[in-house]
Amino acid sequence: MKELLEAFETYLKENLPKAPSFHPYYEKALGEMALAGGKRFRAALVLAAATGLDATSAQKAMSVALAIELFHTYSLIHDDLPAMDNADFRRSVPTLHKSYDEVTAILAGDALNSHSFLCLANAPLPSETKVKLVAILAENGGAAGMVLGQALDCRFEGQTLDLSQVEFIHRRKTGKLIAASLQMGAYVGGADDDFAKRLYDFGMDLGLYFQIRDDIIDATQESAAVGKPTHNDDNKNSFVTLLGLDEAQKRAQKEAQKLREAIGSLPNALCAALNDALRGYI
Amino acid sequence: MKELLEAFETYLKENLPKAPSFHPYYEKALGEMALAGGKRFRAALVLAAATGLDATSAQKAMSVALAIELFHTYSLIHDDLPAMDNADFRRSVPTLHKSYDEVTAILAGDALNSHSFLCLANAPLPSETKVKLVAILAENGGAAGMVLGQALDCRFEGQTLDLSQVEFIHRRKTGKLIAASLQMGAYVGGADDDFAKRLYDFGMDLGLYFQIRDDIIDATQESAAVGKPTHNDDNKNSFVTLLGLDEAQKRAQKEAQKLREAIGSLPNALCAALNDALRGYI
Repeated sequence: MKELLEAFETYLKENLPKAPSFHPYYEKALGEMALAGGKRFRAALVLAAATGLDATSAQKAMSVALAIELFHTYSLIHDDLPAMDNADFRRSVPTLHKSYDEVTAILAGDALNSHSFLCLANAPLPSETKVKLVAILAENGGAAGMVLGQALDCRFEGQTLDLSQVEFIHRRKTGKLIAASLQMGAYVGGADDDFAKRLYDFGMDLGLYFQIRDDIIDATQESAAVGKPTHNDDNKNSFVTLLGLDEAQKRAQKEAQKLREAIGSLPNALCAALNDALRGYI
Repeated sequence: MKELLEAFETYLKENLPKAPSFHPYYEKALGEMALAGGKRFRAALVLAAATGLDATSAQKAMSVALAIELFHTYSLIHDDLPAMDNADFRRSVPTLHKSYDEVTAILAGDALNSHSFLCLANAPLPSETKVKLVAILAENGGAAGMVLGQALDCRFEGQTLDLSQVEFIHRRKTGKLIAASLQMGAYVGGADDDFAKRLYDFGMDLGLYFQIRDDIIDATQESAAVGKPTHNDDNKNSFVTLLGLDEAQKRAQKEAQKLREAIGSLPNALCAALNDALRGYI
């Protein structure tokens, strides 16, 4: 996985959207947030699922991994806008609306959103597969997927929701894109619809587990150790607030156990690839 | 064309993105600006190109026409945002950030951007064709296409550019999506790559002609007659400002003549369909 992700960094640098013009900084801004780093977690899931099913599929998977990483980057750029999180920094660099202006941040996000579909259309894969990948990304990232999750999260910020509503939000805001990464990787690796759906469902559980784990880290660890602000006491809808710390930890352990069992039941090579991609998380 | 566009309105109403949840207005906002009307000009070009080449292709073209119309709608929603045009009304109704809030306007635009690719992926067309359509929309609407045009237009607002720079902007901001509409319609109608490119080039010229024509209308007609504000004297980069009214009118006549000749050289049915779609414009 380490080598695959190094190859992915090179591929990403060489395949950022090109937009030459007399604009002084638009083209630079398009790639800036993607180049600033990040865990490449969604890309790793695409690569793990694909190569775990077909060891020769790494090159075919690169363009798909780039698509999901640029799509994720678009969502971060827009989440950081003044109207939403109004964040000054992301991935240790100033956000685009701070480095440049709000217009550039909105438009760079818009461009990366569309460009991720171009990455899929240009992938070295059969047309049937590419159409499936476009539909998966658009459904899970779009109107009833990630964007709906973000809309709900913004709308109900500071208001108390019940557990089922909070799960509904997180399954959309983060779960669906993680699930889509695994499902898309599965198709690149040659999986049939049933197997790809099995990895999708695993991804939905994985996304929920991450949210519970993040909420526990936020409640229990100091900012310096985590690398981002913690103790966000105004978050009325964290799993820790809703369940209490003890119950949240029990739930996290239960979800982690379920995930380990699901990985253990997969074919050996895929099991190994996913364990590698998820090392330190579960 | 009138019947086709009526059928398109019905299709649009029935195929807006669904996003049921406990959000009080997100799903309504997603469809609101598309339902508010508009000339459906890009949809008409898709339908004209497709049915002009294959009279039986109207149903196959509907999903493609919807894709480009929702994509265009996303761009209008984002152009109207406070950071860009800060517009209060669009298509005679309040803009989304006025009706609801800026978060909803940003997210509805994001959702429609992605959803337009879902419309293409779900179209009743061969996979090979759908992959081409996804690439055309993403290239012409995305990073080096419409979004680049918008970025330049915002960046140089109020500054004087030269004619070639102004043409560069308009070819991207409006030309490429109009050209893409014709190219996509051509593929739906069964055109080969060369013929689809011929309609694309025609569309680029058409987009430029529209901009010159709009600038002349803006400079010479009264607001009440046009239905939107005119005499935007702060627009330093209109063709009328750059060329003078006389030269702009001569250029418009020359471009219109070129367009009429291009249409006249097309197969009869396509010529008739395009003349129908462009009635009143050229």
